[in-house]
Amino acid sequence: MSYNTFGHMFRVTTWGESHGPAIGCVVDGCPPRLALSEEDIQPFLDKRRPGQSSFTTQRREADQVRICSGVFEGVTTGTPISLIIENTDQRSKDYGEIAQTFRPGHADFAYQAKYGVRDYRGGGRSSARETAMRVAAGAVARRVLGDGVRIRGALVQIGKHAINRSRWDWNEVERNPFFAPDPEIVPVWEEYLGGIRKSGSSVGAVVEVIAEGVPAGLGAPLYSKLDADLAGALMGINAVKAVEIGDGFATAGYEGLENADPMRLQDGEVAFQSNHAGGILGGISTGQPIVARFAVKPTSSMLLPVPSVSLSGEEVQVVTKGRHDPCVGIRAVPVGEAMMACVLADHLLRHRGQMGVM
Amino acid sequence: MSYNTFGHMFRVTTWGESHGPAIGCVVDGCPPRLALSEEDIQPFLDKRRPGQSSFTTQRREADQVRICSGVFEGVTTGTPISLIIENTDQRSKDYGEIAQTFRPGHADFAYQAKYGVRDYRGGGRSSARETAMRVAAGAVARRVLGDGVRIRGALVQIGKHAINRSRWDWNEVERNPFFAPDPEIVPVWEEYLGGIRKSGSSVGAVVEVIAEGVPAGLGAPLYSKLDADLAGALMGINAVKAVEIGDGFATAGYEGLENADPMRLQDGEVAFQSNHAGGILGGISTGQPIVARFAVKPTSSMLLPVPSVSLSGEEVQVVTKGRHDPCVGIRAVPVGEAMMACVLADHLLRHRGQMGVM
Amino acid sequence: MSYNTFGHMFRVTTWGESHGPAIGCVVDGCPPRLALSEEDIQPFLDKRRPGQSSFTTQRREADQVRICSGVFEGVTTGTPISLIIENTDQRSKDYGEIAQTFRPGHADFAYQAKYGVRDYRGGGRSSARETAMRVAAGAVARRVLGDGVRIRGALVQIGKHAINRSRWDWNEVERNPFFAPDPEIVPVWEEYLGGIRKSGSSVGAVVEVIAEGVPAGLGAPLYSKLDADLAGALMGINAVKAVEIGDGFATAGYEGLENADPMRLQDGEVAFQSNHAGGILGGISTGQPIVARFAVKPTSSMLLPVPSVSLSGEEVQVVTKGRHDPCVGIRAVPVGEAMMACVLADHLLRHRGQMGVM
Amino acid sequence: MSYNTFGHMFRVTTWGESHGPAIGCVVDGCPPRLALSEEDIQPFLDKRRPGQSSFTTQRREADQVRICSGVFEGVTTGTPISLIIENTDQRSKDYGEIAQTFRPGHADFAYQAKYGVRDYRGGGRSSARETAMRVAAGAVARRVLGDGVRIRGALVQIGKHAINRSRWDWNEVERNPFFAPDPEIVPVWEEYLGGIRKSGSSVGAVVEVIAEGVPAGLGAPLYSKLDADLAGALMGINAVKAVEIGDGFATAGYEGLENADPMRLQDGEVAFQSNHAGGILGGISTGQPIVARFAVKPTSSMLLPVPSVSLSGEEVQVVTKGRHDPCVGIRAVPVGEAMMACVLADHLLRHRGQMGVM
Repeated sequence: MSYNTFGHMFRVTTWGESHGPAIGCVVDGCPPRLALSEEDIQPFLDKRRPGQSSFTTQRREADQVRICSGVFEGVTTGTPISLIIENTDQRSKDYGEIAQTFRPGHADFAYQAKYGVRDYRGGGRSSARETAMRVAAGAVARRVLGDGVRIRGALVQIGKHAINRSRWDWNEVERNPFFAPDPEIVPVWEEYLGGIRKSGSSVGAVVEVIAEGVPAGLGAPLYSKLDADLAGALMGINAVKAVEIGDGFATAGYEGLENADPMRLQDGEVAFQSNHAGGILGGISTGQPIVARFAVKPTSSMLLPVPSVSLSGEEVQVVTKGRHDPCVGIRAVPVGEAMMACVLADHLLRHRGQMGVM
Repeated sequence: MSYNTFGHMFRVTTWGESHGPAIGCVVDGCPPRLALSEEDIQPFLDKRRPGQSSFTTQRREADQVRICSGVFEGVTTGTPISLIIENTDQRSKDYGEIAQTFRPGHADFAYQAKYGVRDYRGGGRSSARETAMRVAAGAVARRVLGDGVRIRGALVQIGKHAINRSRWDWNEVERNPFFAPDPEIVPVWEEYLGGIRKSGSSVGAVVEVIAEGVPAGLGAPLYSKLDADLAGALMGINAVKAVEIGDGFATAGYEGLENADPMRLQDGEVAFQSNHAGGILGGISTGQPIVARFAVKPTSSMLLPVPSVSLSGEEVQVVTKGRHDPCVGIRAVPVGEAMMACVLADHLLRHRGQMGVM
Repeated sequence: MSYNTFGHMFRVTTWGESHGPAIGCVVDGCPPRLALSEEDIQPFLDKRRPGQSSFTTQRREADQVRICSGVFEGVTTGTPISLIIENTDQRSKDYGEIAQTFRPGHADFAYQAKYGVRDYRGGGRSSARETAMRVAAGAVARRVLGDGVRIRGALVQIGKHAINRSRWDWNEVERNPFFAPDPEIVPVWEEYLGGIRKSGSSVGAVVEVIAEGVPAGLGAPLYSKLDADLAGALMGINAVKAVEIGDGFATAGYEGLENADPMRLQDGEVAFQSNHAGGILGGISTGQPIVARFAVKPTSSMLLPVPSVSLSGEEVQVVTKGRHDPCVGIRAVPVGEAMMACVLADHLLRHRGQMGVM
Repeated sequence: MSYNTFGHMFRVTTWGESHGPAIGCVVDGCPPRLALSEEDIQPFLDKRRPGQSSFTTQRREADQVRICSGVFEGVTTGTPISLIIENTDQRSKDYGEIAQTFRPGHADFAYQAKYGVRDYRGGGRSSARETAMRVAAGAVARRVLGDGVRIRGALVQIGKHAINRSRWDWNEVERNPFFAPDPEIVPVWEEYLGGIRKSGSSVGAVVEVIAEGVPAGLGAPLYSKLDADLAGALMGINAVKAVEIGDGFATAGYEGLENADPMRLQDGEVAFQSNHAGGILGGISTGQPIVARFAVKPTSSMLLPVPSVSLSGEEVQVVTKGRHDPCVGIRAVPVGEAMMACVLADHLLRHRGQMGVM
């Protein structure tokens, strides 16, 4: 069945298609009396907004969010918050052709197999455009988490070109169009991605998201493990094919001492000596930074022809014209941050519900 | 909050601690009139059962499952199926010491931070013992999926030693104590893991699970994406730190043509020319085999000392005596299969609910 | 926590306040390929719309619904259906006074106690205006149920004046402003309610909703019993204080033979000889008409003064000016029908999910 | 679909059939560090236990509850609490006949229509025996609510014989086998019910449950309204056909002033002058006692013959031998209390999750 809601207490339901009149979400369960206005949400949307460099799709959307309920006299009321963004630059003519064919690697075929019908304009519901609403919801989630929790993301790999982690600089992330934390990778990516774009191809990427200031104790032993919920939330972002927490796949190669994060005391508090676990043990936060990484595959929409079949059952070559991201992983950075924020906000409310604290 | 249930229509709730009187689960939403007896479940539990080789924990549990409800005259009735396994070999004396200290890399510290209390005997609720119930539920899920769906898992890496995929042989998986699909890796792992065990250390691993025969159309565009649900389910297995679908992290390094699975026609049916996507596009199954992989970190319980702190706030060195798996990833193979089966059964029921077919 | 969603597979989430810019809902889980347009929804909204007679509030709302997602080329796509109605006649000036006082019998005090803030304009989220979205969702639910299921409601009591059931005429329901099925009660109610309105008072009512053509087998033995879900859904309508199924409270006075509905065979099919059970046994539909009744209390907003207290902690007399329904039970008729439709549609999808039929 | 779970944060899942080996439930989401042992649960089970007077079924069950998980060293751990009761007095021979026929008024026909199979022994899953687990879960819920909340139930009507409310005495409830709060009704009911029992008939009843000390603010404006959740929970008890909150159906006959509960100040606190609302306004508790009432129909199992049909499609007369409650409403009193406790505990946790208080 469709299930366009996530979260248990901080619950987000999204709706809308790429080329419909609007997209939106309903944020339910938000605590009351939090200051909230469009100005708190817009900056995050602006980070994700397309058309800001030659490395993202040229679709021009203002992505102007409007709060339609749940806020009164500048504060949340505890009732559902409806957020809506009008679609303004749809250009449906670009997409007429794909109505009849399936783009390999795209959701086209799977949607048709499931529903027997699909809104093919701009990918319809499967468009990355939907992620704008996740970003909007994430801005509300940050309000719930408060200033003590800081969530930041960065792009750590495009194609075969990974950053050098020893040069990590959070300030750099805001200075380049890639959310790159390594200043020296920027010219490399610029040249590489320029070539990809010109050739009509696309390329994958890896995003890393880190949450600092998360108190120990969020999560649950089983099925609502914090890492399991994060994995589901991040894998649910368009084009994501892999997720890892902390050292992730590298831990498969570790022996016991390489994996264990030793604990010492510092000013009477527990201080971990390393963070291979990525801030989560047994599904519960430890107070260390929560570290997640996810892989974004290359956009399947590209100018290079790929063998495919048509709706009417003929073999064809598919070339996807129109406006597309050569590396959709770039704009996935604010989306990953938002999903992290939503999952943490949900677990914060669930934790204090069961525990009666915080 | 605690949330020991997963699934929407095929719903599994587990309970029990490592050293309590029993562990169990309730499987709710199972269709009626499916033949089911203990004999259908026991073989899967026997695969996961400890103490079968020197490479798994020496705890001896019969893991004899008992169906306590939901089955009448040999068939399911559509009402909740209660499955219970008595704990028989607890030996609580082994664990007295860990009541006072936190094993680095283990859930001890996080549980204490969350709940202010924990059943420290054998890890209590965080013990891998709980996965027996997932395996039991998975056996019921296989009944729901029917014989047309085949779910198999294998161990593809222990520590730095990965299999050679060109030698993949499913029959081999049943012939060695590692669930290894590559006969030539077996002696390598035997020697390596023997050394790990003797040194009192532990090591990580990678498990791969493949489901064949899954019809196209299972899943949903957003939030209940098949891959997102699989990611959550697999990341929720004890000690798992990473999950990938299809080519997973490798897709980050791909350009467009490397990622797209070309489609051709074969006997009038769509035939994919490759399966980089791992059988899922846009969150929905395509009819290709569904391929998932996950990394299991080294057991944190080991004989090597690690710096830690005690409950009373002193710096200590922790050595975990008692019986442990040197490579807990081995027994994670049947658990991964079971989680795949449960997620697919749930999506099958959800799909036919919305679609009214199958 | 707030939880503005109901249903498991056919899921409705509503948002919006009486005097915000708009109200809306998201209908998730709707099967694909059902014909749906605004014209299918509007007639039901028009039945509930205020300002159509002197017996309902004089607020004038066009209640023009707009489908913003989930429908493409005239059919549902299986993705979430967003429905929005703009608020056009808010007149907030009417409500300034109630910001400072609590109307006895109204949600004012409880909201303030819970949230410490409330949108007092027109009752905010607690306004019966929200029920417009239930009616809209109900229209979609009817599409899911198909033409074989007919859901109709009627008003059977206003104040002390009940209808004579022997004169029940469904055609009459559409001919009078009360949804009364008894033509002879109409002048009685006209006179009585005219007096209530002139005196500035209000009055309670009883609504009956009947669903015919519901197949046997919908529902579940426990916790998702069809009657339990109906009770929750109907009790959740504004101002409802009681719900009964079939003969309801009267069954408390019955002896065994008075309660049992005898079964005979007719043309080889089971034919019940009576329907005291209201079409539901053991939480599951029997194929008989499903009969539910609910009591709607008098509107607490009225011109008669009632002792109350103010936000600042003073004793006051509250008189509620502005536009109000003297008998809010009248407009609850289409709302009750809608909730019945939503519950049945949800159970239909759930049933065929578990059973794989229909 | 089956859905044998209720609650969002305080979640109860039950399993088991009347004549299976055992019945049980899993209570998930319970806060940690609450003192809990079997002795806290058993007294409530003993109140519901059959065979204690000639007015309830003669089945003899010890109903000895066993805590199998979630409690360690006398306190809850925050992990799922598994409660199990062995069935000891099944006597399946009593029920052989009903395998082939449908008892009118019983769930037999509906189960068969839904599942195509049913455990007919003692009613299987539809047996009131399942309510023992609700009572057990309710005892845990009381622990969550704490001593400040007092939940008590009473029987206020059997057949046509209602109590005189002016004689209400809570102490009397514990002194007679009916949970009657009116001493003068006891001999009336004794004689009347004795006659019912001898004639092989059965009779309906009304139960009232009152919760005192519930803080203002529990509940939610919509869909998770406290009254809606109570209505669903109480209507979900076996044989219940109607539920009302506060003055319930009587409010349909009220005019505005009769319904409004005036508010005054007393020692600086809001003091309501009456409680027609039953402690709930707008779906949220007001701090007044929460009052709910529900009607229990006569048991359909009785010695008097009723026309029915058989599984093989023949007209028959059904007489139900075996052991049955002549008035199942009596034992519904502790069940009603338990459901009230569970709903309130759930809302308490949800409230403090969203609000971060209490």
